[in-house]
Amino acid sequence: MEDQFPEEKFSAQYRNIPASFVRSILNAIGQQKMISFAGGLPNASLFPVEALAESTRAVMADSGHTILQYAGSLGYYPLREWIAARYSAKYEMEITPEMVVITNGSQQAIDILSKLLINPGDRVILEKPSYLGAIQSMSAYLPDFREVDLLKDGVDLSQVENLFRNDDIKLMYAVTNAQNPSGISYSLEKRKDLAMLLRKYNQLLLEDDPYNEICFGDEFPAPVRNFAPNHVAWTGSFSKMVAPGMRNGWVVLPPALVPHFDKAKQASDLHPNNLTQYVLHHYLTHNDLDEHLQRIRTKYASQAACMTEVLERYLPNEVQITPPTGGMFIWLTLPDGLRADELIHKTMERGVIFVPGNSFYTKGQGSNHIRLNFTNAEPAEIETGVKIIAEEMEKMLCVVS
Amino acid sequence: MEDQFPEEKFSAQYRNIPASFVRSILNAIGQQKMISFAGGLPNASLFPVEALAESTRAVMADSGHTILQYAGSLGYYPLREWIAARYSAKYEMEITPEMVVITNGSQQAIDILSKLLINPGDRVILEKPSYLGAIQSMSAYLPDFREVDLLKDGVDLSQVENLFRNDDIKLMYAVTNAQNPSGISYSLEKRKDLAMLLRKYNQLLLEDDPYNEICFGDEFPAPVRNFAPNHVAWTGSFSKMVAPGMRNGWVVLPPALVPHFDKAKQASDLHPNNLTQYVLHHYLTHNDLDEHLQRIRTKYASQAACMTEVLERYLPNEVQITPPTGGMFIWLTLPDGLRADELIHKTMERGVIFVPGNSFYTKGQGSNHIRLNFTNAEPAEIETGVKIIAEEMEKMLCVVS
Repeated sequence: MEDQFPEEKFSAQYRNIPASFVRSILNAIGQQKMISFAGGLPNASLFPVEALAESTRAVMADSGHTILQYAGSLGYYPLREWIAARYSAKYEMEITPEMVVITNGSQQAIDILSKLLINPGDRVILEKPSYLGAIQSMSAYLPDFREVDLLKDGVDLSQVENLFRNDDIKLMYAVTNAQNPSGISYSLEKRKDLAMLLRKYNQLLLEDDPYNEICFGDEFPAPVRNFAPNHVAWTGSFSKMVAPGMRNGWVVLPPALVPHFDKAKQASDLHPNNLTQYVLHHYLTHNDLDEHLQRIRTKYASQAACMTEVLERYLPNEVQITPPTGGMFIWLTLPDGLRADELIHKTMERGVIFVPGNSFYTKGQGSNHIRLNFTNAEPAEIETGVKIIAEEMEKMLCVVS
Repeated sequence: MEDQFPEEKFSAQYRNIPASFVRSILNAIGQQKMISFAGGLPNASLFPVEALAESTRAVMADSGHTILQYAGSLGYYPLREWIAARYSAKYEMEITPEMVVITNGSQQAIDILSKLLINPGDRVILEKPSYLGAIQSMSAYLPDFREVDLLKDGVDLSQVENLFRNDDIKLMYAVTNAQNPSGISYSLEKRKDLAMLLRKYNQLLLEDDPYNEICFGDEFPAPVRNFAPNHVAWTGSFSKMVAPGMRNGWVVLPPALVPHFDKAKQASDLHPNNLTQYVLHHYLTHNDLDEHLQRIRTKYASQAACMTEVLERYLPNEVQITPPTGGMFIWLTLPDGLRADELIHKTMERGVIFVPGNSFYTKGQGSNHIRLNFTNAEPAEIETGVKIIAEEMEKMLCVVS
């Protein structure tokens, strides 16, 4: 054990967690200055720093003793009330604070729900491609992933129904708004039809919805949760709405699941951070959130448009661009002969990184895809970075043809 | 799924987590005013509220943009440096910041290390009795617990060596300072001998040390970690030193384990809370922590002395009191005929709660023990509560004899 820890000592669940490609790249390149389209960082210029500083001051002055003590594992009740009220109003549905549990980002909701439900070998339906953080988190519970195709308007429901009917499915995971990595959103009709299938086959959907408020056109349709409230665990996150460093997200659960989720969560880390829950609640109730969200939408939509325009201008014609409906990413489909996991090594040498598609699949596929983040780069960087990617693509295509 | 979630849908790991007795009691009694010796709440009157409010204001003003962005999963480097420096100096050992990982309380360190190491059926050594939060957290990974007797100066090492020698042990868990629930501390000799066994049999100890700074007499001896640094994961917590609502603890790991712990942790919730890490670091570097700790020690020692005195005055002579060396709890051993899990129902009716010993054992033992918290009750409450417990004990003893 002295210098290296013997591999066989690690648990099977740990060994099943795929390495993060982004992280291994970042470790490799160290702290060099890169143009990064890789991560999913919000644009820090949009953080409401002054308002949050004021909220921080106010809650420590008003409630210091309470904030500093141990607290309830389900989260700060007024914050749960705020979430319930906002989304009850937004979708004309009835969410009570008792259905809302505060988590350390929506990532923890995925982890806890997986801990609660997934036995080794249990079948879990994923979109193809799917969010890499969910793949990592769920992998630690040794599921048997079943991937279903993602179309322009959401998953292929005939494949989903086929799995529901013939396989013993434990859970389905989907990002229905501005899907990560593809940027597509589910149509209203598809949401309703998926809800119908969940009810018909008595299945549970983890509807992961961190980009709910980050739409570029009209508001996104109501979540699947609206049409099957007892068959959906619906997450949300303040990371994209306000700021990720606060590490507060939530999940709206079918009431029957709440006490079980709570118990599984207590075993993980007792309770969510008090200070940031109070700060967020104060911020949300003393500022115009919708105005703030409008600023984020406008900025991200313009960054997405800029990147799309530059991609169309420079990339080889054979590369297909999926226009994002919101969120933070553009998804590219490469022609034969271009492998993203090879391309990345070429662009890295020239100071540009992105995430090759493989990270978003569970069975090694996806090397014909690229995910590009546009929220954390300004137009000049976008143009420089895209040009480098385009040049390296052209070179690789020349070698092939 | 409509009203109740079918039990068979839950994972085996979830179903293996024991319910929290304290929580089920508290749920049962609702929000009534009780005298509680049950929880492990620090005394809120000792929280440095003003200083933390000032630190909160300062870090938001200085570093707002950084605090609000996503951050590294290992934690805020200056805070890791502070921890490394303090304990390197305190014990004349060499801890580098790279060995320190910040967690959501030390509870998360237990959870992540369990996720990383424990396969279903793996043998884990626990002290008998052991910390109930560790039992809950580890149970979710389906270990085969092996309990070893706890003596006045630490575990029975012959039992430990026997297990190391003959069984395939994955991990040992121990609280070496002011053990929860027993209040005992390991002697220096026992620490050295345990370290020798860890090295001899190449075993890993999770040395959980939240009460390191809460000693009532002389400083506690150096941790087992000092004598076998590559065989010990050593946790610490700001919950008892500063305030639990900040939810920041840490673990000092053998270097070979750090990248693996980090990967398992990322899959759980990405990274620790930024704001509270900055606040703690600012507080620790702008205030006299040792003076603050001295206030906590003095207060808790006087509360412990008060409770001990009252217990000796009122309890039946047959009840044995273990004098606490630090921390937050007094451990009682009851004579035949007194069952703590029956007594609690009587005292609850009269407004007094504590934790029956059963919660601290994995195989249903311990009903002849009681854990009493003394940090969160003032002398008058302590006297009233203990008198009620004593009266109910006398009644039960009368029935028996």
